[in-house]
Amino acid sequence: MPGAGNGCRARGTAPLGGKPRWGLQFARFNHRGRTRYLRVNSDPQEDTGETHAPVPFYVVAGTPAYGALIDADRIVTLHVASTVCRGRDVPVRDRTTDRRWQATPPGDAVEAVIAGGAGMRILVFAGPTALDAVRRYNLFFGGGTLPPRWGLGFWHRTPTRFTADQVVEEAREYRRRGVPCDVIGLEPGWHSAAYPCTFEWDPERFPAPAAFVAALAAEGFRVNLWEHPWVAPRAPLAAEVEPLAGSHTVWGGLAPDITLPAAREAIAAQHDRVHLAAGVAGYKLDECDGSELTRSSWMFPAHATFPSGRDGEELRQVYGLAFQRLTEELFRRRDRRTYGLVRASGPAAAPLPYVLYTDLYDHRRYVRALCGASVSGLLFCPEVRSARDGEDWLRRVQAVCFAPLAMLDAWSSGTKPWSFPEVADAVRQAIALRMRLLPYLYTAFARYHLDGTPPVRAMALCGDGAAPLALADDQFLVGEDLLVAPVFAGERERTVLLPAGTWHDFQTGEAFAGGGEVLVRTEMERIPVFARAGAVIPLMPDLAHAPHAGDTVPLEVLHFGQCPGRFALYDDDGETYAYERGAWRWLDFRVELALDGSRTGTADPRCAEVGPGLAYGPVTWRWMG
Amino acid sequence: MPGAGNGCRARGTAPLGGKPRWGLQFARFNHRGRTRYLRVNSDPQEDTGETHAPVPFYVVAGTPAYGALIDADRIVTLHVASTVCRGRDVPVRDRTTDRRWQATPPGDAVEAVIAGGAGMRILVFAGPTALDAVRRYNLFFGGGTLPPRWGLGFWHRTPTRFTADQVVEEAREYRRRGVPCDVIGLEPGWHSAAYPCTFEWDPERFPAPAAFVAALAAEGFRVNLWEHPWVAPRAPLAAEVEPLAGSHTVWGGLAPDITLPAAREAIAAQHDRVHLAAGVAGYKLDECDGSELTRSSWMFPAHATFPSGRDGEELRQVYGLAFQRLTEELFRRRDRRTYGLVRASGPAAAPLPYVLYTDLYDHRRYVRALCGASVSGLLFCPEVRSARDGEDWLRRVQAVCFAPLAMLDAWSSGTKPWSFPEVADAVRQAIALRMRLLPYLYTAFARYHLDGTPPVRAMALCGDGAAPLALADDQFLVGEDLLVAPVFAGERERTVLLPAGTWHDFQTGEAFAGGGEVLVRTEMERIPVFARAGAVIPLMPDLAHAPHAGDTVPLEVLHFGQCPGRFALYDDDGETYAYERGAWRWLDFRVELALDGSRTGTADPRCAEVGPGLAYGPVTWRWMG
Repeated sequence: MPGAGNGCRARGTAPLGGKPRWGLQFARFNHRGRTRYLRVNSDPQEDTGETHAPVPFYVVAGTPAYGALIDADRIVTLHVASTVCRGRDVPVRDRTTDRRWQATPPGDAVEAVIAGGAGMRILVFAGPTALDAVRRYNLFFGGGTLPPRWGLGFWHRTPTRFTADQVVEEAREYRRRGVPCDVIGLEPGWHSAAYPCTFEWDPERFPAPAAFVAALAAEGFRVNLWEHPWVAPRAPLAAEVEPLAGSHTVWGGLAPDITLPAAREAIAAQHDRVHLAAGVAGYKLDECDGSELTRSSWMFPAHATFPSGRDGEELRQVYGLAFQRLTEELFRRRDRRTYGLVRASGPAAAPLPYVLYTDLYDHRRYVRALCGASVSGLLFCPEVRSARDGEDWLRRVQAVCFAPLAMLDAWSSGTKPWSFPEVADAVRQAIALRMRLLPYLYTAFARYHLDGTPPVRAMALCGDGAAPLALADDQFLVGEDLLVAPVFAGERERTVLLPAGTWHDFQTGEAFAGGGEVLVRTEMERIPVFARAGAVIPLMPDLAHAPHAGDTVPLEVLHFGQCPGRFALYDDDGETYAYERGAWRWLDFRVELALDGSRTGTADPRCAEVGPGLAYGPVTWRWMG
Repeated sequence: MPGAGNGCRARGTAPLGGKPRWGLQFARFNHRGRTRYLRVNSDPQEDTGETHAPVPFYVVAGTPAYGALIDADRIVTLHVASTVCRGRDVPVRDRTTDRRWQATPPGDAVEAVIAGGAGMRILVFAGPTALDAVRRYNLFFGGGTLPPRWGLGFWHRTPTRFTADQVVEEAREYRRRGVPCDVIGLEPGWHSAAYPCTFEWDPERFPAPAAFVAALAAEGFRVNLWEHPWVAPRAPLAAEVEPLAGSHTVWGGLAPDITLPAAREAIAAQHDRVHLAAGVAGYKLDECDGSELTRSSWMFPAHATFPSGRDGEELRQVYGLAFQRLTEELFRRRDRRTYGLVRASGPAAAPLPYVLYTDLYDHRRYVRALCGASVSGLLFCPEVRSARDGEDWLRRVQAVCFAPLAMLDAWSSGTKPWSFPEVADAVRQAIALRMRLLPYLYTAFARYHLDGTPPVRAMALCGDGAAPLALADDQFLVGEDLLVAPVFAGERERTVLLPAGTWHDFQTGEAFAGGGEVLVRTEMERIPVFARAGAVIPLMPDLAHAPHAGDTVPLEVLHFGQCPGRFALYDDDGETYAYERGAWRWLDFRVELALDGSRTGTADPRCAEVGPGLAYGPVTWRWMG
């Protein structure tokens, strides 16, 4: 039998104990029985494995669980129990007479292949739980990102053709209406030309960029700039990039070989001079994923050549990651943290201050992506852009306010939080709740940084990873103690899977027995949120924008249920990298129960001191459930 | 600029003058602006380029037109004006202000890539017309197949669990109801076990195979057997194939390395002994395409290894072709022609006696595939299986009766021609018309064999290849002179694009000016068929089945319009390869017009003689239009 079986041995077949899952995947969460083609590509409608961030990291639930990363700069094809090697003991059935016959034969191994035969490095991350495997994966690459505090406020993107004055006016409307907002994002029209980009301010729409940014800063807004990496021939940057670009153009723009230090430095220098010097706080890095779809084709092809000797396949797989690193470094040099959005990512992305987004706009797929991203060191933003009606609008806003980045992207539709009057109040409340949760969310990100725990994460990363929890893709955990179950427009009730233990309705305190399903009614004004018994959740006021270092912030601390509880609140200056140099602290909040069931809360006595960041006080307590 | 531009030069960029198209493609006919991944794969829902037969042959319409084949055993990726090399003069536009901006930038070249860098051979076929390019392509590989005469009759496939007696009873129902039928196809249940296959008759359902085949033959039926190539471990063939199979199984069955003569011979010997010796007339070769889809996964992977040293990618790309060759050779050894169905094919397939089919069941896609197949040396069968209602059933039957193979596949649904009583008469008429056209269809196939003209072909292979004709994918030509415009259920009228010249309604003779669109009403009973002015169409009676060599067949010859006309009728024995040894003849039918417009038809005086095949007579004439 020459050759028989070699195909498997040469490529490291791994036995498969449980349910593997990974990456930003929209169509499904459990990939058993599927062949996944992990190419970076814009949002295909069909479930092939291609996405904006197809990370070849998978977690196999089981006892113990473990994770495995195929570490490669090339496209990885993963056969997830979708092939069967000879010698495997699989049932052979007669389709004509045996109803147990299956179109997809049940395999028991993962096979991974990289075209070109360059070999692969496989990193295995131990459990014992699925969450442990994910934590180790994130920590191995440096831990999760810690965004600036303002990054966790609410974001708004203005229509693409807006002038500086129109943008400022639209931002002020948030203040007039009392809707919190921290970041204003500009879309392509800020460039003097875009698709491909000049990276220079349009002299008519934005004649005085620094003054424009300063005007917004005076009212507590940061400015985020849209761009993609393809350099317009008329851009001043083009002359420098020209000898450092690939063989093919994108929309007629040069594709810089971003793996070359000289190309990165040229881009960085221009960005620093033209954007950061004007006060810009971050970027939305669009279109670095490429597209080979039914609907459109635009990207250098896999066989494109680049000056570094790399080909188009490699460049496309790493472009989003490299673009994130380049811009993060730019801000790091000025000791300013950034936070932004990106359309392509990959392995080892947890430390990068970027959140993925997509043009697929199905709300259920968005929530599934939010869950799936957490299993592979990614963050996802189910941005709101438009809606069928007020109900759909409200449901989308309610969900995005529990995401790693909460944004309204009105670049095309021009929809505002108050565009549907019948739900405008409820929309404002959802955004206000996000702002109130800011200390809790910031702490969740600190944990992401320090121990690798995704701040927003799938139910599979909770408990023993057994079904049905492990397969839930329409609810998720936020921080240590909150469970969020989004409602989709049209739903009048939904079931929520609660892990073991007692859980409390976040708003009413009503107790629910966990370890199974509960049915909840879904009043329009509320997104179902549950707090674990014993949870201690600090809330700040719904300020217009995130507080600055040195501010004093009052806290209302909620405690749920009849269990003692504790919360360690993370704090630092919220803006610089000083936390990496030790300038941070944890503040302790405890609740104890007396024999008669009465509760006593104790706030860390250092709360009222200004630490490296904020002071907290006064602290009030609220007993829920 | 190290490397810049090399990606293009190394891979043979071809300038692109017109509209390229190719292969069995369901979703579109013109592929400009798309990247096509030409992998053999089951019917994906999304338009990626993958299909059962993704032939990397494309025709560029223009003056002159030409065709190009990328000749490779591996997956070809074709970038059809979907990429733009540097140095190409493409417009660069500002998306913010310029409405002419396009998501897919307009390229002007085809780039072809084969992974693995084995190089490629590109064969270019001259025009001057698109039809000429396709003819040259077909002739280069030996010309189109000439099926046995019975292959062009009507086909029926019986439910998979039927016994021999049930099959015979169902076949007799055709005779009782006067519906022509030539071939009865057996589905998986004839195997003692299937999926994977034993290739042996089930001893309970088919205890006496030769007697069963003889019983059907006595009533004029041929027997076609379903199979796929994956060998059940319990099959007697397994012991021989075991050392000649690949590293992976398919449904637990062995995958023979069909590129090895020893594997082919083992399969051929078993098939000859067990099937052909019992009188079987042909095969339906299923599941040789593999599937890596959202819905299911079953196939050896691309990295599977085979004893020949070839890998799974190569084997999968050529499996359908090799399986066709193997079985054709089997019948050739017995000097019997065969005709059958296959689920995977590729380049150079024109001489193979097989017709493609698929599980995608959208009627429009079926007709588009019928058109698309003709541009790359393929035949396609839009088989009827089930229907929403009587109208849908009738419309599907009417269309399939003009296809290269006309089949009802009742393997699962059990639907019969008479299952919808309200359209049973019209269904019978459609099948009867197919039988009446048999001399005309057989002649069209003779042309396919001798000059490469596809017997059923897209409008693009007619005239100058200019739009809109070149893009029509819902009507087609049959033989030299007929144009068929299928009607889809629900349509009350449709437009038909007529090429230049005068055309006549096939049934009424009504004249229509060509060179543009006509609107036709679509009575249920009729599928719109048009004959070219001057067309001479011989019709035989709607016999129960195709005639045999030595039979005498009367002809009614239709002539359309006020132009002189001529038809050369091909004839041979209809069953053996004697035609390759010169045993064939052409019979001439001519119509001349007198000055008063009266018409005179002259039949070849040799008609009444028994030639190598049939005798024809008496000959009657009918003047249409």
